[in-house]
Amino acid sequence: MVKDKKVGIIMGSDSDLPVMKEAAKILDDFGIKYELTVVSAHRTPERLVDYAKSASSRGLEIIIAGAGGAAHLPGMIASLCELPVIGVPVKSSSLSGLDSLLSIVQMPGGVPVATVAINGSRNAGILAAQIIGLKEPKIKEKVLKYKQDLKETVLKKADELEKAGYQSYLEGGKHSK
Amino acid sequence: MVKDKKVGIIMGSDSDLPVMKEAAKILDDFGIKYELTVVSAHRTPERLVDYAKSASSRGLEIIIAGAGGAAHLPGMIASLCELPVIGVPVKSSSLSGLDSLLSIVQMPGGVPVATVAINGSRNAGILAAQIIGLKEPKIKEKVLKYKQDLKETVLKKADELEKAGYQSYLEGGKHSK
Amino acid sequence: MVKDKKVGIIMGSDSDLPVMKEAAKILDDFGIKYELTVVSAHRTPERLVDYAKSASSRGLEIIIAGAGGAAHLPGMIASLCELPVIGVPVKSSSLSGLDSLLSIVQMPGGVPVATVAINGSRNAGILAAQIIGLKEPKIKEKVLKYKQDLKETVLKKADELEKAGYQSYLEGGKHSK
Amino acid sequence: MVKDKKVGIIMGSDSDLPVMKEAAKILDDFGIKYELTVVSAHRTPERLVDYAKSASSRGLEIIIAGAGGAAHLPGMIASLCELPVIGVPVKSSSLSGLDSLLSIVQMPGGVPVATVAINGSRNAGILAAQIIGLKEPKIKEKVLKYKQDLKETVLKKADELEKAGYQSYLEGGKHSK
Amino acid sequence: MVKDKKVGIIMGSDSDLPVMKEAAKILDDFGIKYELTVVSAHRTPERLVDYAKSASSRGLEIIIAGAGGAAHLPGMIASLCELPVIGVPVKSSSLSGLDSLLSIVQMPGGVPVATVAINGSRNAGILAAQIIGLKEPKIKEKVLKYKQDLKETVLKKADELEKAGYQSYLEGGKHSK
Amino acid sequence: MVKDKKVGIIMGSDSDLPVMKEAAKILDDFGIKYELTVVSAHRTPERLVDYAKSASSRGLEIIIAGAGGAAHLPGMIASLCELPVIGVPVKSSSLSGLDSLLSIVQMPGGVPVATVAINGSRNAGILAAQIIGLKEPKIKEKVLKYKQDLKETVLKKADELEKAGYQSYLEGGKHSK
Amino acid sequence: MVKDKKVGIIMGSDSDLPVMKEAAKILDDFGIKYELTVVSAHRTPERLVDYAKSASSRGLEIIIAGAGGAAHLPGMIASLCELPVIGVPVKSSSLSGLDSLLSIVQMPGGVPVATVAINGSRNAGILAAQIIGLKEPKIKEKVLKYKQDLKETVLKKADELEKAGYQSYLEGGKHSK
Amino acid sequence: MVKDKKVGIIMGSDSDLPVMKEAAKILDDFGIKYELTVVSAHRTPERLVDYAKSASSRGLEIIIAGAGGAAHLPGMIASLCELPVIGVPVKSSSLSGLDSLLSIVQMPGGVPVATVAINGSRNAGILAAQIIGLKEPKIKEKVLKYKQDLKETVLKKADELEKAGYQSYLEGGKHSK
Repeated sequence: MVKDKKVGIIMGSDSDLPVMKEAAKILDDFGIKYELTVVSAHRTPERLVDYAKSASSRGLEIIIAGAGGAAHLPGMIASLCELPVIGVPVKSSSLSGLDSLLSIVQMPGGVPVATVAINGSRNAGILAAQIIGLKEPKIKEKVLKYKQDLKETVLKKADELEKAGYQSYLEGGKHSK
Repeated sequence: MVKDKKVGIIMGSDSDLPVMKEAAKILDDFGIKYELTVVSAHRTPERLVDYAKSASSRGLEIIIAGAGGAAHLPGMIASLCELPVIGVPVKSSSLSGLDSLLSIVQMPGGVPVATVAINGSRNAGILAAQIIGLKEPKIKEKVLKYKQDLKETVLKKADELEKAGYQSYLEGGKHSK
Repeated sequence: MVKDKKVGIIMGSDSDLPVMKEAAKILDDFGIKYELTVVSAHRTPERLVDYAKSASSRGLEIIIAGAGGAAHLPGMIASLCELPVIGVPVKSSSLSGLDSLLSIVQMPGGVPVATVAINGSRNAGILAAQIIGLKEPKIKEKVLKYKQDLKETVLKKADELEKAGYQSYLEGGKHSK
Repeated sequence: MVKDKKVGIIMGSDSDLPVMKEAAKILDDFGIKYELTVVSAHRTPERLVDYAKSASSRGLEIIIAGAGGAAHLPGMIASLCELPVIGVPVKSSSLSGLDSLLSIVQMPGGVPVATVAINGSRNAGILAAQIIGLKEPKIKEKVLKYKQDLKETVLKKADELEKAGYQSYLEGGKHSK
Repeated sequence: MVKDKKVGIIMGSDSDLPVMKEAAKILDDFGIKYELTVVSAHRTPERLVDYAKSASSRGLEIIIAGAGGAAHLPGMIASLCELPVIGVPVKSSSLSGLDSLLSIVQMPGGVPVATVAINGSRNAGILAAQIIGLKEPKIKEKVLKYKQDLKETVLKKADELEKAGYQSYLEGGKHSK
Repeated sequence: MVKDKKVGIIMGSDSDLPVMKEAAKILDDFGIKYELTVVSAHRTPERLVDYAKSASSRGLEIIIAGAGGAAHLPGMIASLCELPVIGVPVKSSSLSGLDSLLSIVQMPGGVPVATVAINGSRNAGILAAQIIGLKEPKIKEKVLKYKQDLKETVLKKADELEKAGYQSYLEGGKHSK
Repeated sequence: MVKDKKVGIIMGSDSDLPVMKEAAKILDDFGIKYELTVVSAHRTPERLVDYAKSASSRGLEIIIAGAGGAAHLPGMIASLCELPVIGVPVKSSSLSGLDSLLSIVQMPGGVPVATVAINGSRNAGILAAQIIGLKEPKIKEKVLKYKQDLKETVLKKADELEKAGYQSYLEGGKHSK
Repeated sequence: MVKDKKVGIIMGSDSDLPVMKEAAKILDDFGIKYELTVVSAHRTPERLVDYAKSASSRGLEIIIAGAGGAAHLPGMIASLCELPVIGVPVKSSSLSGLDSLLSIVQMPGGVPVATVAINGSRNAGILAAQIIGLKEPKIKEKVLKYKQDLKETVLKKADELEKAGYQSYLEGGKHSK
């Protein structure tokens, strides 16, 4: 039965998948079940309506929607559905995602989209976990643990960098890219 | 019967009316029948679907859609309807319409919106007339006449300005504002 | 006891209050209790730390943070607290809120801020209600009712506009401004 | 005889051809005859005038004009000709097409250019087909069929993605790039 | 006889006159004869062609062209005429002249427009004088004198400000606005 | 004798004085002596050279330079002088200070300008005090006191707002504007 | 003797040379003598002053100055010299030349810089030739010839493209890149 | 003992190290001792607080902080510490550092960050040296020497370029890249 899926991850095109898969990966890490598919606001508008209208009754609690350019998917889902919608502006080829960002975030009064950074689909997943964590203490624990891990990773790197000095550290290729 | 209305003028909010009425006025001048109403992509999504899906069978040939901010109305109409859709980016309060413009014009492959300038609803009406003029020679005549009038207005102003000199012309308050 | 307050509404300066009060008003409408105060990331950083660190134990579930310019408040709260944080970019005097928007939305991986439109504090309140509605069916009902009311307001305006024609409608001063 | 060509596709430089050929290809798909050539507003202004002035009498119904940078070609054609003009902003090397977009879309009152997305020449061709479809039911059918195909392609991909899971799907290299 | 007019000042609309009159005023100050009129690239394209093609033979040496929005006038004059063309981007109502600036300055290789600041028509006049000064020592003298006067005005203000202190200076309303 | 003046406050035009006076006021508050005058990079370039070259020997330790548009003053002072230069981008009439900001901050390697916010001249004064505070413990004390006062002002406002509630607070007109 | 050099081509850094050499090449084509060197406003300010102040007496008539980022070179030359100055905004690594463009074009009243497109140094050379052509009929002839050649190149390409069709033309690799 | 370190160089992520190492290198050149590490405002907020609060007592005089995107590190350090803070906007992957720049420079009144160019960490080091030079004549000497060297490098290149001509110079690969 589908009802155990809490998050719907959708994207306007399968070309958005290399970006949007990060949301799936982090939900996997948190042990949150999700469904992931393509719903195009512009090419499959009826599917968009069906998806949004059935989301709540299918047991979804949050929808993460990513799109680029005139990125209407997150806002249209939000208009058709009472669940919280998280929008991921996907970096576009000509305007670097500024168009995607403005199309997603500048929603009119009454219909919010919780927008994250350009290509910020990992953060969309974390935000979903934070919201689910309000109801499920186990998830809240995992969010706290995740933040703790983030911190420790940075502290460890800081320690290594301080010990090695920047030259060895860079030569060793240890820095993130 | 409704079938004589060729153009549908819609807008996301009645606050767009002072801008969008210009499309209506120019269609009045061209003697082209139209309907004008509010259809909000975000607040009345079902109305949007109905409007778009019935447009062709109700006899409409062109839809002019104006919206501001995350302006999804033109693109969603275009996705749901095979008629040409003309999009009017309405100047927004914080980003001066740059958000509206990018949300409307940056449509993905397959679903065009014929975008005009920010607040360019008069031009949306003229473009509709040009399109209708391809089928109706009488309208094409009127478009030619309109362009001729534009030219003559400019020539008359140029003549007056050359004769009066810029100082008298400005003091006389003759220049457009 | 404070524990019944579910939402914390904070802002970087009391000059943001005319914008941020809209979040409070909508939460009042939804019957959601909140606290509202000023926390400046730059002028009262210790208060920021205390506020964020105590938020969860004081019973808050969501924090709405508004700020303008180099708007660090939402992101810093998000960094110090595991609750979902909603960021409201306040329109700034020189760059119209583009700086506020980018400072709030472009958060690094690991620390999301759920960003709404520039000056979109009403939507921040609605988003908070949508999130709370996942746990409290009564609030979910109210969100659905709110969306229904929005729709009906638009439909009523559309009806009036269609009946009156745009000229009478504008002359009657009925349109939103 | 030339009269059977309905669409003129022109571009400011032959370096725009890799972008503009998409308009030609889609018109080929729709079975709409067109002519395609280079007309530079800045290097061959007399040719521009001749082209625009003869367009209607040569039987053209729509002109698709693409240009980059200070992209004057679409607007100047529109000023010299009563036919609908579709403008394609070509991505420019330094400002990524933002200059092309603003130069094409921000036309003054009286002289519209139907602007599509940056590098959106395929959409320019589809828009031309939609306009021609108003007169020619066979083309309208093809537009409907095209939209149907778009939808089915997305549905098929969505189905494959749902079945394969995102990891296999990406590993299989199935996603668009 | 017209031949004594060295500079043609043209603008796309008489609404540009309050900006463009500054070019005329500074040419008056320099004693350089000019003609001033309206030539709209979009509304009177034939006039544009005639103007540009006859400019050199009518004795003009420099053309100053101002326009706003999709500001094609300066570039089209430059394309049709071998004289130096100075372009003045006029501040536009929605995008503050950024559109005008990019439309004027981003000309393709082969057809330069000497662009000055948004609303910088006074500087357009000074640039014309600098160019004419290359041939006419009397004008060069006046340019040097003008630069000297500018300097002295600043030095005088600096002196007054230093003596008065900023408070008295501001209270006295002496500062430029 | 002039040697007791530690900070030079200069601006490109006396129209910048309403903005730049804030730097003077805060230095007055800190008891730091300064000189204030107009030095135009473009109208009085020799004065700029003299000012910059004599600054150090006249006893100045820091130069605060404000300018708008193509704001070359701070960068040119920095190029001619080894003292730290603080640049204040003054809000410009057409591009809201984005031009001023980029012209000041984007200096090439070797010649830094310490840039503050658009119209941020008060912060320029505080930064000067922080720098002087490195040598003069009394000034460092005052900077600490100033930061303490800032904090207390915010805490007091927060307290009042919490007690009064946002409605009374706004009605009482207590919020900053 | 130096006096026969009419144009000075200068740039802020030798890294600008690949862009700025285009101005030299076109002046070579027109048979106009020039000098070319590096003058850094920020690293060699005294050289800048000397260069600008001696330019006229050394026989130069026009200065072409290219720079990137906070591109102060053209404006400072213009402030120190009464000759016409042509500014070339060089594309910068982070902001693609938007910073260079605004720093060069947004000059204050009194000190114009004739700005060309980002990386538009060829056009700077042509503009210089147009200006010199006002005095030297032989150069004017060459400008006319150059414009004629531009036109013929386009017409030839248009002809080839029309004959070959876009597919063969592209496959043949004939289009500019 | 740590007290001999005058400058703290910190960055939000070790991926900023290739940019931020330039600040370290120039301080090495000036013989100024520094510490260099990673402090993430968003991932290690407590470390940020500790770092900022202990900076002055640990003997630091200046903090150089680099960050990208919603770059809160420099501003938060400035809010927690009375020392001068120099901010380096690191070029970001989607918006090229415009987001980083605005997040760092647009600080509110009371809390300045001395911002340098995007990726301008070398200049951050030089600015630190200029500030330290106010107290330590030896460092001031080195800054003067550095500026002298910069100048000589340019003069040498100018000389070589003038002698070789641009073609040989470019062919010899002598120009900076």
